[in-house]
Amino acid sequence: MAVLLRAHLGDVIRESRKEQGRTLRDVSAAARVSLGYLSEVERGEKEASSELLASICDALELPLSRVFAEVSTRFATVESVELAAPVTLPVRPRIEAQVTAA
Amino acid sequence: MAVLLRAHLGDVIRESRKEQGRTLRDVSAAARVSLGYLSEVERGEKEASSELLASICDALELPLSRVFAEVSTRFATVESVELAAPVTLPVRPRIEAQVTAA
Repeated sequence: MAVLLRAHLGDVIRESRKEQGRTLRDVSAAARVSLGYLSEVERGEKEASSELLASICDALELPLSRVFAEVSTRFATVESVELAAPVTLPVRPRIEAQVTAA
Repeated sequence: MAVLLRAHLGDVIRESRKEQGRTLRDVSAAARVSLGYLSEVERGEKEASSELLASICDALELPLSRVFAEVSTRFATVESVELAAPVTLPVRPRIEAQVTAA
């Protein structure tokens, strides 16, 4: 399963809040969302509506351009791993095993 | 009112579909979403869930990293306009009005 937008968004919001040394209570009050809602968004368990996402990022003084530049970078990292992953090559038996068998 | 995520996302998806010369019917079938849902997402009227957004962008062969790099750029453009906008200066009465009053 690929990583979803709401997971990346939640990570970016939580990391930004912690870098600022702020609590869920503080940011949820500033953004006028419930503490439970913000917590679920940060854990990637809830889709934030566009309006509440703007409100949360405003409370964090985090421009949406920066949020999505960061989200883009995280998707790019996942995509490069996904592109690299599916190649499987035949593997020789380990040398030690050959020695033991001789 | 600031521009919302769903508006930018809708624009990026619609522009990408049109660049590829594809119809709503074609892309909605490939993404396994209803034509009405895709149309509402493109018009910025509906929040796409993270799962369906991934499915739509997959149908368009559009990496999510590119989608959000584009969304980030569009937010940056709006933010620079908003930063420039709020300055209001006192305005003199129009010259014509003064002449008429004299």
